[in-house]
Amino acid sequence: MSRYVLGFDFGTLSCRGVALDLNTGKMAATAESPYKNGVISREMKHKPIKLEPEWFLQDPDDWLESMVSVSREMLREGRIKPEEVAGIGTDFTSCTLIPIKKDGTPLCKMDRFRDIPNAWPKLWKHHGAQPYAERIEKYAKENTTWLKEYFGNSVSSEWVYPKMLQVAEENPEIYIEADYFIEAVDYIVMLLTGINSRNSGILGVNAFWVKGKGYPDAAFARALNPLLEDAANTKLAGDIVKAGDYVGKVLPHMAELLGVTTEAVVAAGHGDSAVSGCGAGVTESGSMVLVMGTSTCHQLMYREFRSFDGICSVAADGMIPGLYGYESGQPATGDVFSWFAQNCVPAPYAERARKEGKSLLDLLGEMAVQYKPGETGLVALDWLNGNRSILSNYNLSGLIVGMTLETRPEEIYRALVEANIFGSRKIIENYEKNGVEINAIYAVGGIARKSPWIMQMCADVFHKDIIVPWFDNVSARGAAVCAAVALGKADKKWGCRDFQEAAERLVPKEVVVYHPDSENGKLYDKVYSFYGILHDTFGLNDSFMKGLKGLKEIKREERYHE
Amino acid sequence: MSRYVLGFDFGTLSCRGVALDLNTGKMAATAESPYKNGVISREMKHKPIKLEPEWFLQDPDDWLESMVSVSREMLREGRIKPEEVAGIGTDFTSCTLIPIKKDGTPLCKMDRFRDIPNAWPKLWKHHGAQPYAERIEKYAKENTTWLKEYFGNSVSSEWVYPKMLQVAEENPEIYIEADYFIEAVDYIVMLLTGINSRNSGILGVNAFWVKGKGYPDAAFARALNPLLEDAANTKLAGDIVKAGDYVGKVLPHMAELLGVTTEAVVAAGHGDSAVSGCGAGVTESGSMVLVMGTSTCHQLMYREFRSFDGICSVAADGMIPGLYGYESGQPATGDVFSWFAQNCVPAPYAERARKEGKSLLDLLGEMAVQYKPGETGLVALDWLNGNRSILSNYNLSGLIVGMTLETRPEEIYRALVEANIFGSRKIIENYEKNGVEINAIYAVGGIARKSPWIMQMCADVFHKDIIVPWFDNVSARGAAVCAAVALGKADKKWGCRDFQEAAERLVPKEVVVYHPDSENGKLYDKVYSFYGILHDTFGLNDSFMKGLKGLKEIKREERYHE
Repeated sequence: MSRYVLGFDFGTLSCRGVALDLNTGKMAATAESPYKNGVISREMKHKPIKLEPEWFLQDPDDWLESMVSVSREMLREGRIKPEEVAGIGTDFTSCTLIPIKKDGTPLCKMDRFRDIPNAWPKLWKHHGAQPYAERIEKYAKENTTWLKEYFGNSVSSEWVYPKMLQVAEENPEIYIEADYFIEAVDYIVMLLTGINSRNSGILGVNAFWVKGKGYPDAAFARALNPLLEDAANTKLAGDIVKAGDYVGKVLPHMAELLGVTTEAVVAAGHGDSAVSGCGAGVTESGSMVLVMGTSTCHQLMYREFRSFDGICSVAADGMIPGLYGYESGQPATGDVFSWFAQNCVPAPYAERARKEGKSLLDLLGEMAVQYKPGETGLVALDWLNGNRSILSNYNLSGLIVGMTLETRPEEIYRALVEANIFGSRKIIENYEKNGVEINAIYAVGGIARKSPWIMQMCADVFHKDIIVPWFDNVSARGAAVCAAVALGKADKKWGCRDFQEAAERLVPKEVVVYHPDSENGKLYDKVYSFYGILHDTFGLNDSFMKGLKGLKEIKREERYHE
Repeated sequence: MSRYVLGFDFGTLSCRGVALDLNTGKMAATAESPYKNGVISREMKHKPIKLEPEWFLQDPDDWLESMVSVSREMLREGRIKPEEVAGIGTDFTSCTLIPIKKDGTPLCKMDRFRDIPNAWPKLWKHHGAQPYAERIEKYAKENTTWLKEYFGNSVSSEWVYPKMLQVAEENPEIYIEADYFIEAVDYIVMLLTGINSRNSGILGVNAFWVKGKGYPDAAFARALNPLLEDAANTKLAGDIVKAGDYVGKVLPHMAELLGVTTEAVVAAGHGDSAVSGCGAGVTESGSMVLVMGTSTCHQLMYREFRSFDGICSVAADGMIPGLYGYESGQPATGDVFSWFAQNCVPAPYAERARKEGKSLLDLLGEMAVQYKPGETGLVALDWLNGNRSILSNYNLSGLIVGMTLETRPEEIYRALVEANIFGSRKIIENYEKNGVEINAIYAVGGIARKSPWIMQMCADVFHKDIIVPWFDNVSARGAAVCAAVALGKADKKWGCRDFQEAAERLVPKEVVVYHPDSENGKLYDKVYSFYGILHDTFGLNDSFMKGLKGLKEIKREERYHE
């Protein structure tokens, strides 16, 4: 008989799971279950209640249903007995924030609040809190030192305080009624164990939490809104844990739902990007992991603490205990490509893709790769969901320039892909400019294995090797690795001592390495210089793009008042 | 028995004709025939010879075939007897330039030259001569006064000298062998009559010809290329005529082809935009005619001569004799919309359009009109074919900014339409700033009657009434009106004394007037201010867009050398 750890990776659209065999280190089973209601935008699902643009919610029942379905499928597929499941790890998109009662009931599931969008979990990409983020940023820049020191001197509308402040200001009754505002992953851990734990690696990214200092003080919170004054000790309270920590064991009713026993150990939850380092077996200082999926997260582990602008955050124990986790990111990667495929590609391409039995994006990729760098004469800013790093501004928007009557869809697609990779180069250059050495770049996520041409483009644009772990489900594996390390605290035989041992025992060694082509690299440098001009013209001063968005808002309000 | 005049309008893709009854003033017949080879780009049709981007050629045989087909169909449909055809008028896209022998043989029809693209007629929108235009402009700015005085101080790559210089430099053997370089409309008149006439209204737009002064002198031409030294007296020589002039009668073999007699009078050819004033019955100083089709031409008739930058040209007798014709334009209007429909609109829209039995552009228009000005949050530069007025620069290209993940195709389409109309507003403002009073704006061409929402947008953006003559085939009617005026020189009974009388007798009075909505106008003013910033940022200094095009060229050459 062996023992297994289950990892559950809660993504934007589905929950994926893997079961790792602690005896052989191999994957014994995997499963995926899409959330029934996916991402809720434009209109609520249970009733035709309109949502503002930039609002993105989820239904917490979907998470549990998908988790149960994934767990049961894995046990069945892997012929794993309930008592063989020794540990459970989880990771979740972050910051996805949910107001709940002490007993774990989400406010959106209470009749009084069901029809109020602010009662629902706000998905990471919810940008409806942008005005609040701006207020917080302004105040924190003028009145604190920690914003500049730990959080790149800017406040993302995706983070805890803007999302929480939005509720407090727009629906104070909900803010007051909520006992906790909690990261979705910590909510899942709470469902499993009954214990209110908070992963400090995530808090150090999203919640202004600093190791040794905690949350911002009451004066700061009060200045935002008097309701928030005691939030640090109430709404955000919980046991501080870190990746690989042991939180508790599975509660009986949850054990029954998942098909495991109450002996299974539950690890501290983790962020879905930060966990990828665990899943890819990356444990060395100076390693950057690009998580390229719907968005891109740049996760860097580094031994030293440094403080500079243009990053999202630097958090002690951010990815694995003992190293600082630096986080940067791009809020839309696959999302931009999907937007393009759905909105901007004509019927004959769809027809051809269908005939050739491939996705539209795969067809476009095959066509786009035929061009040489610069040959399209196009350059783009892919800020369709704003810019996280290095500008941290959600007032920004997309731009494409250089079209002629000869321009074809695959050329525009290529320009959007290039723009995304140029954005990553800006991020890498910002680290290097500030003395952070990057020794190795890994790429994981949906795009890393599916689009070799995009990986080659990364290598050419960055002038660096790109290492792609050549196996699936890196995030879910990371969650399972966290479970194995947590198990190690209680069970020396089956568990792992630390993440280094877990990488050795549980992570496959297969990688594909993309080496830069220096000729293409030189050509990309030229295109990148044009990108740089657009980046600075429209990004360093946001008055144009912010003004454009302003026009839109004015109009929308007028329509509402009609 | 009545008498008829036939008007032939040679557009970019087809020849259209109308037959007007000189007795009743009514249209007796109309017909259209597409050119067999359409526009030749990317690759020659008779052999797989690659063409550079920006090259656009036509086959002169297509013109004659279409003309014959149109003539015969009109005579049949209108039950017009050969001897009842009293006059023939023509207009043609301009500057479409063709090298020919004295006997009218196009060089591209000679075996020795057939495979050389420079031997073929260069269509108006051929922009392959851009580097030559720049050289000519630079030289003329430094060494002449007439460029600034009559031609907006800039040289379009569409004009005669750049196109002719391109042949002289790239294929001197063709330049030397050609007896004439001639506007396509004058070539058609030459085919009909055997007479080499040149419409001075067109020369005054495209060929640096100034009434009372003629072509540039030999020193100027020699400075461009020694081969050109005597061009004014050789390659460009011919009888100077103006709109409504009598050139000659139809040659026997042409009469037979067309199904008319050798008694039919042939009028001076006219430009396809300038002729629209004749066809719409516009004869008053201060009237602007927007010809909105594949491109937009802004034709203004005005009693005074003024000289300023940002127009294409000002030519004596440019539209009708006795008034100056001011010309401005946008090199792509319908072309941009078609590019968008063909390249950027996804399958479900095409499917819906098909189901609803309408064109994709009509469907997009219906969707786009639902938005309020500014509501899309988008602004565009529609310079996909460069900018003619007021920037006169074919290094410029298209730009769209403001996209988010919520942006839909109809919003982008709307932004492109707005950009086009904002471009017209720039042109109108440039006239008014320079003291030219615009008393009335007419809109004709394919878009004027098909897209009421675009006409309303023009009214709102310009803050002016837009008058749309509510009948078809304005250009071909204009050509027929020219024939009636030419006939008047020989036949007082059936012909017209002048364009005023022709307008009275032959042009319908039906118009639709669009009045500006002042609320929308104010909103458009805001969006226009964003357009203005883009216009100036990317247009006043072309280094960015020119640089991008440069990247493209470099790459293409590298590929050729592989």
